[in-house]
Amino acid sequence: MLEEIAANRCFGGWHRRYRHYSESLRCEMVFAVYLPPQVEDGKVPALYWLSGLTCSDENFMQKAGAMRVAAELGMAIVAPDTSPRGEHVPGDPDGAWDFGLGAGFYVNATEQPWAEHYRMHDYVVFELPELIEQCLPVNGRRGVSGHSMGGHGALVCALRNPGAYRSLSAFAPISHATDSPWGQKALAQYLGEDRAAWKDWDACELIAGARERLPLLVDQGEADRFLVEQLKPELLRKACSAAGHPLDLRLQPGYDHSYYFIASFIADHLRHHAAALLA
Amino acid sequence: MLEEIAANRCFGGWHRRYRHYSESLRCEMVFAVYLPPQVEDGKVPALYWLSGLTCSDENFMQKAGAMRVAAELGMAIVAPDTSPRGEHVPGDPDGAWDFGLGAGFYVNATEQPWAEHYRMHDYVVFELPELIEQCLPVNGRRGVSGHSMGGHGALVCALRNPGAYRSLSAFAPISHATDSPWGQKALAQYLGEDRAAWKDWDACELIAGARERLPLLVDQGEADRFLVEQLKPELLRKACSAAGHPLDLRLQPGYDHSYYFIASFIADHLRHHAAALLA
Repeated sequence: MLEEIAANRCFGGWHRRYRHYSESLRCEMVFAVYLPPQVEDGKVPALYWLSGLTCSDENFMQKAGAMRVAAELGMAIVAPDTSPRGEHVPGDPDGAWDFGLGAGFYVNATEQPWAEHYRMHDYVVFELPELIEQCLPVNGRRGVSGHSMGGHGALVCALRNPGAYRSLSAFAPISHATDSPWGQKALAQYLGEDRAAWKDWDACELIAGARERLPLLVDQGEADRFLVEQLKPELLRKACSAAGHPLDLRLQPGYDHSYYFIASFIADHLRHHAAALLA
Repeated sequence: MLEEIAANRCFGGWHRRYRHYSESLRCEMVFAVYLPPQVEDGKVPALYWLSGLTCSDENFMQKAGAMRVAAELGMAIVAPDTSPRGEHVPGDPDGAWDFGLGAGFYVNATEQPWAEHYRMHDYVVFELPELIEQCLPVNGRRGVSGHSMGGHGALVCALRNPGAYRSLSAFAPISHATDSPWGQKALAQYLGEDRAAWKDWDACELIAGARERLPLLVDQGEADRFLVEQLKPELLRKACSAAGHPLDLRLQPGYDHSYYFIASFIADHLRHHAAALLA
């Protein structure tokens, strides 16, 4: 069911990569998992990390420096890919980096030719956790976080699925996908031109009617070149304020959109998740 | 003199990349530096990190997770490239990854067509530190470390130049370059077929006659696929033992040759260097 394609000992635990066939996405997928040393004594909770545009399972595991703290806390980390993959999976006809391959946006597409494969929401929320909890020493306690497109994904996956996650955070998320050029481009193609359908995939819209109020930790670099046009954290603050949703939005002076920013603050996020997952 | 080509805030300090013309190498070079927050209060010591085969200045900075500890300790990190670069610089005619571009071995070549550009020893030991200490808030206290080919480089640069460095360590170094297929291939081309000339570039040979005995910390993964054929840490242990050179050789069960291994133990190395550089 899971084919192991790499294994690296790291901070006393293991970084492993697996290939498997995804029923949701109708293609072979690769994901990475970090299993901390504590799995020798029993199952551990897992933080799902949703990466940003152009990333694979590898970026976070190689660059975030998260495994040190995960090993200390006793938490697994799961890093899925960012879209379906394969020769039979339609990519973007223009080869754009912000749509299609590497840019699944964690939605379930309804429009052709995307609807058959681009169902990243169902993959990361349902199929992948079930598979992992069946095959690996991971229990059902799940947290979710992510970066940029993946920060949007983390917010949307948690807000659409009350009870699925015990903890939530994001780095530089696309706060209001329907009001972001990246989001508009993706949602128009995956979901069609009717904007009413987009609201179910927009964090600010979902926060208003959320049935669960997971405390939300968000870090955002103030020197992030996508801040003003794409990310708009002030809209997230406004939506949380209006809905009474607990938000700790930290604007970090001088930090940009890169993994150097994520690495600088990932320990705080892991501890935020641990407070809920290991309670 | 230095053209800044990137700057990322990281752990309260800055990761920066610079381009400059190297007189030693007769080409344009790029290097990276991490400047910790403490530079606001004055100059700091610098650890020079010499990377392994195929690497550029980026691998260590992105994957080692070293900046967190450097920021805590108040130490700069300098990551040079691993060979001269550019269209006019001869590469390997066969396109091999273990010779030529990305594989300068930190020697001064004497053979054609390599002798004009492949002078990485003089670049990393003399030209680059002088440039950095002139242009950046870094004082003259230097440590050196590296990985694999760069572990060999760290050992050779320190052993050939007593007084140049105050601290020394290595990850999975090529211990005995003249008894390693990688080393033999490189030395034969850069230095010629006369093996007498190779001894001045071999860590085990240099340890015997060293005029300075910097305590040497070495980590080596026991699951490293290059251990037996290329790295041979037991020869380093034997040479240090015979010469009375202080060596802390740590064999790490289950760890491989990757940056997941380096990340797991880099904090210990930074503290080893800090003990000498910040004393």
